Amino acid sequence: MTRLYNDPAAFADEALEGFAAAHRRWVRPVPGGVVRATAKTPGQVAVVIGGGSGHYPAFSGLVGQGLAHGAAVGNVFASPSAQQIRNVARAAESGGGVLLLYGNYAGDVLHFGQAAERLTADGVPARTFAVTDDLSSAAADEAHKRRGIAGDLPVFKAASAAAEQGRTLDEVADVAAYANARTRSFGIAFSGCTLPGADHPLFSVPEDRMAVGLGIHGEPGIGEAAVPTADEAAELLVSALLKELPDGVTAPAGQRAAVVLNGLGSVKYEELFVVYRRVDRLLAEAGVQTVDPEVGELVTSFDMAGISLTLTWLDDTLEPLWTAPADTPAYRKGDVPAAALVTEEPVYEAERDAEPYRASEESRRAAATALDALRLLKETVDTHADELGRIDAVAGDGDHGIGMQRGSGAAYVAAREACESGAGARTLLTTAGDAWADKAGGTSGALWGIILRALADALGDTEQPTPATVAHGVRQASDGVRRAGGAEVGDKTMVDVLVPFADTLGQQVAGGAGLVPAWAAAADAAEQAARATADLLPRMGRARPHAEKSLGTPDAGAHSLALIVRAVHGALTPRP
Amino acid sequence: MTRLYNDPAAFADEALEGFAAAHRRWVRPVPGGVVRATAKTPGQVAVVIGGGSGHYPAFSGLVGQGLAHGAAVGNVFASPSAQQIRNVARAAESGGGVLLLYGNYAGDVLHFGQAAERLTADGVPARTFAVTDDLSSAAADEAHKRRGIAGDLPVFKAASAAAEQGRTLDEVADVAAYANARTRSFGIAFSGCTLPGADHPLFSVPEDRMAVGLGIHGEPGIGEAAVPTADEAAELLVSALLKELPDGVTAPAGQRAAVVLNGLGSVKYEELFVVYRRVDRLLAEAGVQTVDPEVGELVTSFDMAGISLTLTWLDDTLEPLWTAPADTPAYRKGDVPAAALVTEEPVYEAERDAEPYRASEESRRAAATALDALRLLKETVDTHADELGRIDAVAGDGDHGIGMQRGSGAAYVAAREACESGAGARTLLTTAGDAWADKAGGTSGALWGIILRALADALGDTEQPTPATVAHGVRQASDGVRRAGGAEVGDKTMVDVLVPFADTLGQQVAGGAGLVPAWAAAADAAEQAARATADLLPRMGRARPHAEKSLGTPDAGAHSLALIVRAVHGALTPRP
Repeated sequence: MTRLYNDPAAFADEALEGFAAAHRRWVRPVPGGVVRATAKTPGQVAVVIGGGSGHYPAFSGLVGQGLAHGAAVGNVFASPSAQQIRNVARAAESGGGVLLLYGNYAGDVLHFGQAAERLTADGVPARTFAVTDDLSSAAADEAHKRRGIAGDLPVFKAASAAAEQGRTLDEVADVAAYANARTRSFGIAFSGCTLPGADHPLFSVPEDRMAVGLGIHGEPGIGEAAVPTADEAAELLVSALLKELPDGVTAPAGQRAAVVLNGLGSVKYEELFVVYRRVDRLLAEAGVQTVDPEVGELVTSFDMAGISLTLTWLDDTLEPLWTAPADTPAYRKGDVPAAALVTEEPVYEAERDAEPYRASEESRRAAATALDALRLLKETVDTHADELGRIDAVAGDGDHGIGMQRGSGAAYVAAREACESGAGARTLLTTAGDAWADKAGGTSGALWGIILRALADALGDTEQPTPATVAHGVRQASDGVRRAGGAEVGDKTMVDVLVPFADTLGQQVAGGAGLVPAWAAAADAAEQAARATADLLPRMGRARPHAEKSLGTPDAGAHSLALIVRAVHGALTPRP
Repeated sequence: MTRLYNDPAAFADEALEGFAAAHRRWVRPVPGGVVRATAKTPGQVAVVIGGGSGHYPAFSGLVGQGLAHGAAVGNVFASPSAQQIRNVARAAESGGGVLLLYGNYAGDVLHFGQAAERLTADGVPARTFAVTDDLSSAAADEAHKRRGIAGDLPVFKAASAAAEQGRTLDEVADVAAYANARTRSFGIAFSGCTLPGADHPLFSVPEDRMAVGLGIHGEPGIGEAAVPTADEAAELLVSALLKELPDGVTAPAGQRAAVVLNGLGSVKYEELFVVYRRVDRLLAEAGVQTVDPEVGELVTSFDMAGISLTLTWLDDTLEPLWTAPADTPAYRKGDVPAAALVTEEPVYEAERDAEPYRASEESRRAAATALDALRLLKETVDTHADELGRIDAVAGDGDHGIGMQRGSGAAYVAAREACESGAGARTLLTTAGDAWADKAGGTSGALWGIILRALADALGDTEQPTPATVAHGVRQASDGVRRAGGAEVGDKTMVDVLVPFADTLGQQVAGGAGLVPAWAAAADAAEQAARATADLLPRMGRARPHAEKSLGTPDAGAHSLALIVRAVHGALTPRP
């Protein structure tokens, strides 16, 4: 139960502000997150970690000497935007390039990937790596699809220690991948977390039951069992981790391992210690020597009641990186000499990619139409926000309505300003797309940013848009979303609606139809496709671990897209 | 809600064991608690802190270089026994004497005081100091009666840093007193904690309300108000602390202060940061410069939902002690060079004070009677344990039944062993009294240890006990309990029963009555006095902050004493 907040919508920002105020010796705030307050080492690779808020001490609490150089944090459980990540990385980097590290969630993969592209375009070498330590989220033969949970810590730690040693960007990225390959986690949960302002938890487990396998966004896990004793919990977690050893480790006996017994939020330290008492014995019985065990809250999920156990199988490469000193607000080990603090202002750039305005009269008229469409889009999202949240909550984390509202609202405001300053269609839609992605975060934020950018590029700032250019833009948007999200038709995502919408629009226009009737026909096809997603099982994303729950309910992203294309139709009547 | 445990009765011991296993680089376990694992500095004063379990990181998590040398931890929310404290102190001390530091609670004051006496008898100079930082637990003119809450940390820190500087025992004790005099705390709570194995919290607050002023044993506070916003909570706490400045501080402006925003257990770090954001601004507006603020869980109350704010007003004496480096499992700051670990076995002594057995035949018969009495005592406590817990829970923390069971059970076992090895009455009762205090902890454990020791000294190991010697022993017990506990008749404690019981027994015996009828008459007086406590308001102890609740209910300690003297009567019929 989260009780202490002001405006729930401002919770993540205010928490970050208070965190920075309490830890001025370690971090300084920059737009989008925090970077080290200590002086930089020229030429050192900057390790920038990040993800949504609500996982403290991940991610901002792990910034400091020996660990991350910066952390980009989004809204509660929502990925930071590419622009936020870029700001943090620009402020953190010191000439050695940037490694972006995050857990393997669709929204984070999208935004950190886009940020890496923009950083490279800025002339800052950047690589990305997504942590995949959670055994319960995919089988061993699909390990690359696994979520990142408390295994974040040893992977971040290894990569950061390698950066402190002065290794190159490629070497540091390789260390991250190697540490991840030797890291496994498994967890259990007793109850879900309740977000600020919410009056019920994201999920609940019967009082005497536990969910086996869990994510850090309130995902309820893949199985259910009776609440165990502390010893039984330890036995469950250890046995799960000893079952799947990494390549090159044939048996636990004789191995050395970093151990993280992580509390998800409302399990008390005393309880963790009672569990660890048994974990320590079981590992000793298995012949595993523990190295610098960590028992506490390291990657949380608000006030979720649950624990996870992480093992990183050490070798001569990883052990010195795990035991290396670190000094951050939430994680300190060894002997870190005090370092000078940075005094000058944060160095970062928040410039947009928009081109200077040189819009034609025709394109300004098209921009006015686009603005009108964005207004209708925003209004229909506002109208259906609660419904979208309910649908998303069936198998996801229920934030689709909030995210779409945040994004479409920001997009409309940005577009209106662009329109007032005489922007053409391309500039207006680019500005709107960036605003959407920045403010909404999350997967849908990234994908809608891509959609608006694709339309923008198709319409340009000079030409008079034609039905063909609009259809082409929609086709480009459809291709872009499939590329970025990795989803195909049938995966129960917005792609199930976007593709038939683009196809129908293209066929109608090719057949000589005007934009208005063509769009209407495409909107019909979109609605039909959205309804059809109710019969599908999700094949990727957060919903996957409890796919069956979502049968009978359409995909939230598909449903919102269908509502939007219908609403936007009203803006397309050509103007004199 | 505490879910992860094995046997609830073993929770505290198992948590301590797991804690020590997870932190071998900092601490090593000894009977009764933990001491530093790092090599000692000969001649350095040893700071030994302690109290009940359930307050992690207080107290075991604060042991390490720059902070405590050892921590004695009792059962959940129960003071460690004098013997446990003595063991820890003997293992921690290195020739400079021992300062015992703890929060100001009756049980802790008793046990740490007794431990200091035993240490001095052992030839180890020892002093004690009780922290009294909680504004809400007594008025400024009774500041010495206040409870110790999160102010424990800055006081422990200052004293420990002074010890590290090589100051003498008296100097270190003076630093503790000075730091305490400049430290104030104030807190709020939203819900009470639920102890391992319990199915309901120690207290509850309506969903939309908060308790103003709180202790760290589930005491619900002194007032109630609507749940505030995070900013309102910050304003309440800061204004309370700025209202009562310590001697020598005329105004906040221009002052420097150590700040501790403490989470009681189930308030998330993100919430604490949102509150701290406002605390930081309010203190800045008041002209107070914060020094090394701490925001997090430092002195908890299991899963209690609440926060407290602590200010220590710094000066040239205290600031360097607050900012000095420290390296403990839960509290690390600055640059502490790695120290060698101790390798040899813990050095401590657990010897008893019992004299060698040279009991007379008469005294062995008396010992058999005493054993019989202890059996009846234990049986009646077992029978009424739940009732005693319910009575105690009205205004206290509900552990009286459990504590009495633990103590009387241990006393009976120890007495039986003593009896089998031919002990006289004195040895048997001394052994039983020590076992009671050691196993039960808490105030009642200490007081019952005193009662049995007083009877032991009166009966001796050689003489044939007479009604006069028994009456004398009871009188001595009554005086001893009043001295140790500081309570008088009318304070709603066991003294309300013990005094009239001793008086009646004395008068009857002086009037020539035999022990059996005299004891029966005294037991009648005891029952009457116990009932009468229902009409009294407590004047001291944990029940005090919500005294009115206890009207209409007898005092649990008074009630259990009346039950016991009645039951014991059955053992007194003289044997042939």
